[in-house]
Amino acid sequence: MRYAVLGTGEVGRTLAGRLVELGYEVTLGSRTKDNPIAVEWATAAGGRAHAGSFADAAAAADVAINAVGGRVALDALRAAGAEHLHGKVLLDVCNPLAFEDGRLRLDPVESDSVAEQIQRAFPHARVVKTLNTVNCQVMVAPARVPGDHNLFVCGDDDAAKQQATELLGEFGWPPDRVLDLGGIRSARAVEMLLPLWFNLFQKFGHADFNFEVHRGH
Amino acid sequence: MRYAVLGTGEVGRTLAGRLVELGYEVTLGSRTKDNPIAVEWATAAGGRAHAGSFADAAAAADVAINAVGGRVALDALRAAGAEHLHGKVLLDVCNPLAFEDGRLRLDPVESDSVAEQIQRAFPHARVVKTLNTVNCQVMVAPARVPGDHNLFVCGDDDAAKQQATELLGEFGWPPDRVLDLGGIRSARAVEMLLPLWFNLFQKFGHADFNFEVHRGH
Repeated sequence: MRYAVLGTGEVGRTLAGRLVELGYEVTLGSRTKDNPIAVEWATAAGGRAHAGSFADAAAAADVAINAVGGRVALDALRAAGAEHLHGKVLLDVCNPLAFEDGRLRLDPVESDSVAEQIQRAFPHARVVKTLNTVNCQVMVAPARVPGDHNLFVCGDDDAAKQQATELLGEFGWPPDRVLDLGGIRSARAVEMLLPLWFNLFQKFGHADFNFEVHRGH
Repeated sequence: MRYAVLGTGEVGRTLAGRLVELGYEVTLGSRTKDNPIAVEWATAAGGRAHAGSFADAAAAADVAINAVGGRVALDALRAAGAEHLHGKVLLDVCNPLAFEDGRLRLDPVESDSVAEQIQRAFPHARVVKTLNTVNCQVMVAPARVPGDHNLFVCGDDDAAKQQATELLGEFGWPPDRVLDLGGIRSARAVEMLLPLWFNLFQKFGHADFNFEVHRGH
């Protein structure tokens, strides 16, 4: 299994690094072929780590991970190329956030989500929204937070959600802690969790936290 | 301590009933003085239970609870009367939801919240957003859901949030399970939790669930 991780920010590098540790071939994709951050990452991360353009990364991959900011996701995926995403699982871990005057804002919100935008724009990609509700360090090391806290998967393709759940298992998330919320439209719900995440981040002063869903019956 | 519970729906009746059980005088307020649902509730709930108009209820109360739908909250509170809310703690437990074509929608959302609308319209009320993230049965009986799951309080008045936390304690929520998210603006975050709540409600087929925030460090 070969992965493309699109986006050279902390989220992308963290996921790419963990995938290399797990034994996968990984290309960290960026807008340009010779992005120095991506090249430096690939050099440091060893023989299974590669750097390339968004299109290089997607073309080589079996599974792609969208780890760019939500507001530039469609541009990055267009650069990756619909033909390189065709039929592939595409994990969307981003959030449509921006800061305006120091305040967190979301766009799209409520009547749409980035994940839905991506699925509409790339109907032959098998989009799964997941991981966006935790900090990237927690994504790949859930034991940083005590307790049986949860992740969510959203998407229209059940087999793709199953494949995503297996990868999350390799990251340390047992399958019973991964809650399937339904179709890609439910990505709205997890993208709208971000303001609460951000208020808690401000309250705690760190990002090592997550939510557990408790239920009766 | 005398309570006004504004709204005769399931949320209002459940909160009002629990307050009567706790020994408080409670007026269930509605648009009209002789709302049959409110009169029936007051008759059944005993000597400390009263029915009246929104204005009757608010005028008699030390603390008011807004339990009408979020989209009619301002109208109900205007009918209650700013003079009857002046200087009083006003717990806002509502959500700005509506169903359009069977789909949950929120309005306002993200750039505003019902709680902020209320605080702006009634600047001399001491608004605390709380309880809106759980079903009304869980509000007054948190043990319906196992585990140390949390509630949130949001508001600009620290003493009002403290008073709200004490009432939540009487409902069965220990103070360490009530997380203060900050000023009234943070009500946006808890109102935006509703789509996730609703997806989980659809998934589980019941409303006996809630979130626990786990944190490291």
